[in-house]
Amino acid sequence: MEWKVNRSGDKPLYQQIAEFIEQKIAYGEFPPGSLLPSERKLAELLNVNRMTIVHVYEELQASGLIERKQGSGTYVSTHKWGIRPSVYTNWKKYVEGGSFLPTYPLIRRIREEAKRMENGFDLASGELSTDLFPVQALQSAFTQQTIPCDLGYEHPQGHLALRETVANHVMTYHKINTTSSSVLITSGAQQALYLITQCLLSPGDAVAIESPSYYYSLPLFQSAGLRIFGLQVDADGINPDDILALHRKHRIRMIFVNPTYQNPTGTVLADIRRQKMLEISAELGIPIVEDEPFSLLSFEDQKHDPIKSFDQSGNVLYIGSLSKVIASGLRIGWLIGPQSVINRLADARQQMDFGLSVFPQLLANQFLQSADYPDHLQYLRKQLMDRRNLIMSALREILHGKIEFTTPKGGLHLWCKINQEVDDQKLVEEGIKNKILFMPGSVFGAPNGYVRFTYARLRQKSIMEAISRFAEALSRV
Amino acid sequence: MEWKVNRSGDKPLYQQIAEFIEQKIAYGEFPPGSLLPSERKLAELLNVNRMTIVHVYEELQASGLIERKQGSGTYVSTHKWGIRPSVYTNWKKYVEGGSFLPTYPLIRRIREEAKRMENGFDLASGELSTDLFPVQALQSAFTQQTIPCDLGYEHPQGHLALRETVANHVMTYHKINTTSSSVLITSGAQQALYLITQCLLSPGDAVAIESPSYYYSLPLFQSAGLRIFGLQVDADGINPDDILALHRKHRIRMIFVNPTYQNPTGTVLADIRRQKMLEISAELGIPIVEDEPFSLLSFEDQKHDPIKSFDQSGNVLYIGSLSKVIASGLRIGWLIGPQSVINRLADARQQMDFGLSVFPQLLANQFLQSADYPDHLQYLRKQLMDRRNLIMSALREILHGKIEFTTPKGGLHLWCKINQEVDDQKLVEEGIKNKILFMPGSVFGAPNGYVRFTYARLRQKSIMEAISRFAEALSRV
Ligand SMILES: Cc1ncc(COP(=O)(O)O)c(C=O)c1O
Ligand SMILES: Cc1ncc(COP(=O)(O)O)c(C=O)c1O
Repeated sequence: MEWKVNRSGDKPLYQQIAEFIEQKIAYGEFPPGSLLPSERKLAELLNVNRMTIVHVYEELQASGLIERKQGSGTYVSTHKWGIRPSVYTNWKKYVEGGSFLPTYPLIRRIREEAKRMENGFDLASGELSTDLFPVQALQSAFTQQTIPCDLGYEHPQGHLALRETVANHVMTYHKINTTSSSVLITSGAQQALYLITQCLLSPGDAVAIESPSYYYSLPLFQSAGLRIFGLQVDADGINPDDILALHRKHRIRMIFVNPTYQNPTGTVLADIRRQKMLEISAELGIPIVEDEPFSLLSFEDQKHDPIKSFDQSGNVLYIGSLSKVIASGLRIGWLIGPQSVINRLADARQQMDFGLSVFPQLLANQFLQSADYPDHLQYLRKQLMDRRNLIMSALREILHGKIEFTTPKGGLHLWCKINQEVDDQKLVEEGIKNKILFMPGSVFGAPNGYVRFTYARLRQKSIMEAISRFAEALSRV
Repeated sequence: MEWKVNRSGDKPLYQQIAEFIEQKIAYGEFPPGSLLPSERKLAELLNVNRMTIVHVYEELQASGLIERKQGSGTYVSTHKWGIRPSVYTNWKKYVEGGSFLPTYPLIRRIREEAKRMENGFDLASGELSTDLFPVQALQSAFTQQTIPCDLGYEHPQGHLALRETVANHVMTYHKINTTSSSVLITSGAQQALYLITQCLLSPGDAVAIESPSYYYSLPLFQSAGLRIFGLQVDADGINPDDILALHRKHRIRMIFVNPTYQNPTGTVLADIRRQKMLEISAELGIPIVEDEPFSLLSFEDQKHDPIKSFDQSGNVLYIGSLSKVIASGLRIGWLIGPQSVINRLADARQQMDFGLSVFPQLLANQFLQSADYPDHLQYLRKQLMDRRNLIMSALREILHGKIEFTTPKGGLHLWCKINQEVDDQKLVEEGIKNKILFMPGSVFGAPNGYVRFTYARLRQKSIMEAISRFAEALSRV
């Protein structure tokens, strides 16, 4: 909750809270008939004593604004505004309808804690810490930017200059040949994935994804009515032959992979497997979606060319993003693929949001072309590698023998197996009590007993402490 | 097409074009088996002689890169990369699948012409002309902006400071009481509409919209599986009693209206009808979506308070946008409604695109709070009123007796009835030949014989010429 009580004012807390709720009711933000939080929950949210809330609800009930129903909770009164009780909108029914599915409760719980927790240790959020964003360089790109005079709706595929820069960027860094007309600028990799599920697949279609995978955490696929099947990930990524087997059983329509420094396992799909995957894909006529937000974050000399770089038949839709290399708040990503696909997705996107704002596109374009960009990348890799090293030594020191992991050669995540039986949900709750957040493996479709630690979001100095707190939580379940 | 032939170089045109297509094929942008444009179409797109393209296709066929199938067209060869012909992805099947429907062909045609036409007259695009965007003021807001240091994923509802500014803005300008926690920042009004259809409604649900209406131009509603029913618009907007009648027949689940300077008719929903609508909505428990992108663009002294301003029960979801008052390329809009609805939509939006970029939000926040904003609004209103006056005199002068319209009191659009039988599609094509673009009424669900002229996108000096060209086109059908 954004609103906070004022502890230094004259007005008693219960009165401040009662007035706040009264205002919400008057503004229609808590409509008639809507359920209010329980006393305990509200006390927790506002960080006040439970008795204060008891007092608040008594006041509001006395003034006729709320009603308490035995055993079912506290509701905004439906009689308050006049003599005749109206029907009012039953928002609950609307909110629970709709084809688009909500985020899984466990993920929501962790995200909300990550926003709320003060002085907590966040090994859960899959993004960079504030000191790793190139704020200085972006500020200077910002200040130098000349605003174009046509600020009308953009080209459906995104700002042309940025598309050209992206075409150069993927050539330079990933050996991908393309031209601006085959690039769609998206609101991160996320929007690219969303557009694909909405526009190229139909309810009932079977798709193959890595197991475990980031995609399991997205109700996106279920919302689109897709049936998802897992391809087991080993130390070298998925095994392409498994695609054949899956296809025989389920007629797979599309394959989603995150080959480099995979989320959550950190593994790299071996080069020969990449080649093999493309062959199988071409033979069966099943397109590949190659999602690569982490591939520039490497700690090794070896380069891993994307599948797209040796795809000459347009079987691969390639997704890139600046979220993990510049800033997730920039919301710039891209999709590269056959012209007909790009046109179709661009058209649909127009209807969903009328395209991206021109401003982050200008900024991304400026920054990608500046000399600051390669310097920043180098700095970022070094910092992330240091943190990876730190978290590995912390784990070895503090949890020796109790967990197992392999060293990620790039990216943001470390994937751990816990050598004891644990209940994921309980472990998360113990963690929250101990102010340590992480992602349980079940979120990614793994069995109980795995966790994903993101070492990128925490400052170096906090990593040791974070792992001790995790160890403590683990010892309690 | 973005690529253009180089007419001043040494290389013959046919060779340039052949190499361009070869490159597209090599990059997988035109995948094996995909259909290439006809000779005539490609000649038109590249603005070259048809014989040049005949030559190009002969060359490509000789080299085995393309195949011509009698009567069905020119395709990229499926044998080109090896000995064994692979299956390859049948992208056509994918692109034509997917639950999300494409834009209507006629609208697409007009939009493409608007992008391509040089020295054309655009009375079709529903947005401001480049001289009306406050580029100077935005530039200074841009330059002064200090970038925050946390550039991670934003709050699901959008940047807090902007939500607070929006809450103040709607109080100041529209007498709407709200707080930042009930505001969702969206990518324009468009995304707000999209989220509502995806998250609060289910396939089969019946919704009521104005007839004619902007919403008829959006396959959005059909994509969500909704059944849409029209409420006839007269000089004072829709008649609230019609809602009762519709509801009895179809059990309406939601009502979408654009009450002020409606797109396309320019009408204003009368104040007593607003009141009545809210009463009916509360009685039947049907929520109202009030979409108000134009309400600040008034040419009259009278103010029209939104329905939301007298809604104390949370029956109204209010949508605002900066597209028509600042710049559509900014992509900032908002939705205000009950907390539970805002939370649900914010959660879904996270999955679709992970939220808006922080940069346009910072910029919008800065500009809305600056002294430049009210000055800009005043200037904009004056300019738009001048253009409205100009287009009305041009129509009266040039098309006297042949068309009818009522004076819009604000907004961007003038709605005309043509006093003769016309075929919308033919009129559009005649217009395109004559370099004049407008929106035929059928796009908005009106019968043949209506057109919408947007007077905001053309400079003053071009309006007279535009209307003569329209008159010419009209005389030819
Ligand atoms: C594999 C993968 N794909 C896509 C995304 C979405 O990122 P964004 O939309 O910020 O680019 C993420 C984010 O964690 C990811 O891990
Ligand atoms: C009535 C109405 N609603 C919504 C929109 C979408 O505008 P935006 O998403 O740019 O705010 C428009 C655009 O013309 C409109 O006329």
